[in-house]
Amino acid sequence: MRPSGMVTLLTDFGLEDPYTAMMKGAVLSINPAARIIDISHHIPAGAVMQASWALFETYPYFPEKTVHVAVVDPGVGTRRRPILVKARSHLFVGPDNGIFSPILEDCRDAQIIHLKDPRYFLKHVSNTFHGRDLFAPAAAHLSLGTDPLAMGPMIDDPVRLPFPRPYTKKGSLWGQIVRVDHFGNLITNLRAEDVKKFLAGRRGIIAVGNLRVEGISKTYGEAPPRQALALFGSSGRLEIAVNKGRAADRAGLETAMLVGGEVMVSPSPGDADHS
Amino acid sequence: MRPSGMVTLLTDFGLEDPYTAMMKGAVLSINPAARIIDISHHIPAGAVMQASWALFETYPYFPEKTVHVAVVDPGVGTRRRPILVKARSHLFVGPDNGIFSPILEDCRDAQIIHLKDPRYFLKHVSNTFHGRDLFAPAAAHLSLGTDPLAMGPMIDDPVRLPFPRPYTKKGSLWGQIVRVDHFGNLITNLRAEDVKKFLAGRRGIIAVGNLRVEGISKTYGEAPPRQALALFGSSGRLEIAVNKGRAADRAGLETAMLVGGEVMVSPSPGDADHS
Amino acid sequence: MRPSGMVTLLTDFGLEDPYTAMMKGAVLSINPAARIIDISHHIPAGAVMQASWALFETYPYFPEKTVHVAVVDPGVGTRRRPILVKARSHLFVGPDNGIFSPILEDCRDAQIIHLKDPRYFLKHVSNTFHGRDLFAPAAAHLSLGTDPLAMGPMIDDPVRLPFPRPYTKKGSLWGQIVRVDHFGNLITNLRAEDVKKFLAGRRGIIAVGNLRVEGISKTYGEAPPRQALALFGSSGRLEIAVNKGRAADRAGLETAMLVGGEVMVSPSPGDADHS
Repeated sequence: MRPSGMVTLLTDFGLEDPYTAMMKGAVLSINPAARIIDISHHIPAGAVMQASWALFETYPYFPEKTVHVAVVDPGVGTRRRPILVKARSHLFVGPDNGIFSPILEDCRDAQIIHLKDPRYFLKHVSNTFHGRDLFAPAAAHLSLGTDPLAMGPMIDDPVRLPFPRPYTKKGSLWGQIVRVDHFGNLITNLRAEDVKKFLAGRRGIIAVGNLRVEGISKTYGEAPPRQALALFGSSGRLEIAVNKGRAADRAGLETAMLVGGEVMVSPSPGDADHS
Repeated sequence: MRPSGMVTLLTDFGLEDPYTAMMKGAVLSINPAARIIDISHHIPAGAVMQASWALFETYPYFPEKTVHVAVVDPGVGTRRRPILVKARSHLFVGPDNGIFSPILEDCRDAQIIHLKDPRYFLKHVSNTFHGRDLFAPAAAHLSLGTDPLAMGPMIDDPVRLPFPRPYTKKGSLWGQIVRVDHFGNLITNLRAEDVKKFLAGRRGIIAVGNLRVEGISKTYGEAPPRQALALFGSSGRLEIAVNKGRAADRAGLETAMLVGGEVMVSPSPGDADHS
Repeated sequence: MRPSGMVTLLTDFGLEDPYTAMMKGAVLSINPAARIIDISHHIPAGAVMQASWALFETYPYFPEKTVHVAVVDPGVGTRRRPILVKARSHLFVGPDNGIFSPILEDCRDAQIIHLKDPRYFLKHVSNTFHGRDLFAPAAAHLSLGTDPLAMGPMIDDPVRLPFPRPYTKKGSLWGQIVRVDHFGNLITNLRAEDVKKFLAGRRGIIAVGNLRVEGISKTYGEAPPRQALALFGSSGRLEIAVNKGRAADRAGLETAMLVGGEVMVSPSPGDADHS
């Protein structure tokens, strides 16, 4: 397929060090015309699951045939495989540590290739920085149109991370916080359509930690300042927020416990409001 | 007018989340050749006035016919209008919340358009992320040469923020701190030409909080290390700094009180130094 | 020489302010086709030596004939010269304050030019922001193919910073920490080949602050979680790390004392392990 020429980068490298620039230099040395876009370099160190979610949410906004490089890679240099995934007309390059799990779950006919051919790597591959020495060069070659199948054998046993899934119990729908954003909003894995189906026109009560919200708003500005609200956020999932405030600071959960925290949606007793 | 193909982004989204990348993907999906440049994504959450100042200071350094997207938008999804401003051969896209006030004040014949035509938005516009769903796509179309007048009706009642203005009182010139930069420098709204005109060749005394400086330096290195100084900064405005130190930490004002803090310029008694 | 059209930026400006965007606008106003890549803007304020090391480590990953702009410039506006260095088919632009020392040390036949010709600067050059007014425009002209020799006279007395060098003493090899990265890894100036030559097949003991490590690992994952290890990092130099932890927090040295901290490599007594 004809590549878009675009390469996105997602890492846990931060921006203080020159590591991301080295990756960009490695890409541009192979494909000087590549367009490089940062998704984020502020994934917490080693947080593979968080990175996998950010990538899954973001890649569909890019043109088809974009190459996405994701390097949250605590096992770099060990026996974990470097892989390439072709799914929904996008290409993904990174370690085989589960970072592509949501993409593989969403796209059952994805092709997965074990990146093995050293012709597509830098000449010297270090043990500690495959982002620069292996993934960036492979992505650059893909952005030039190299056939993924030329880069290594297909595999069918990629590492898959177990993601928490929503469930129903005792008349409530339960989900989990999957991300806390810059504004302190708590983003859950509860999809709008599933919540609406569960509530079936009844008014909902949403509870997480100390926060309890009645009804689902359309905008952040709908609640009075400093008051908590729930809405379907820009990713199409239930989100708990505080107007002009930070839900993350108000939930009464320790910061480290926020991601993964349980969110309960219950129908309001005796209520059939459609809001 | 023939566009420059460049699109700048200014937001309060931070860089941890994939939000800015989603905006970039939305731009590149419409105009794959667009050049995207970040102005900053570290505007404090909801600080419309601070964003408006950063944009006003920065846009003139870009080529004419650049499209500038500014999204500090606490009212997203409410009735606030999405607008497009054409001023001084640049295009500006963002919410009608005052973020373009200094540009409108500076350019009296600016054209302002209410972005209404959904052909220039993503197909699904969320209630919470107009940066991605509405402003980025509109900017991408503008960067391709779409006529601004095709995107909606002209309006003449944009929101304007009241900015503090310098004034004279009891023989002194008073201004305000409008920005504290990364180096802790206090940047004021006092323009070099106005300060020079006021002092009329007399040596100045500049006072802000606990800091009191005599004379106006040419460079940061002119004062001894750790000593405060005043100079006309790179934006052509009076700036209070500390050589190899942070004026923001030395002014004795609380951090939250720095922006907006009063700065007094007085002529030195009985002095006619031209420095 | 035909330029690559690429311009990298390395500063201590941070990303909150619009300063880096102003530099990019200045470049693009002169060369709209320039490709601009950030190396980092998070060098600690005024840390010239740290910037010089980051640049030296990073530039070789970019295509030849790239222009690298480095602005950590506490002496801006004083008599320090603006310079241009041509070395190993790359071009470097910045203040003459030692920021190019490792490049000059590594490349004895580098050409150094005093940037003097105002035709290659912005029309108005401020006293406080040469990054925008002088270095970015000069870099843009170079990226268009302007002859470096047209921009000013050659000089042979650039400022050189004294860098600590490894030495041997009482049967041990001593080096220094030159950088602490985002993961808390301690990166030294001890090159892999020098350490290997010194150990001559003997097992090494590496000591820094409270940390003491036996043997040199190949990967971070080789040590048990939370345990310190030493390895040759991605820059080809000895690095002390903690698997799934931060060596910087475990060395028992104050943060301010980490860079420059002494690292001792000794042969293990009576041991001839080749690991």
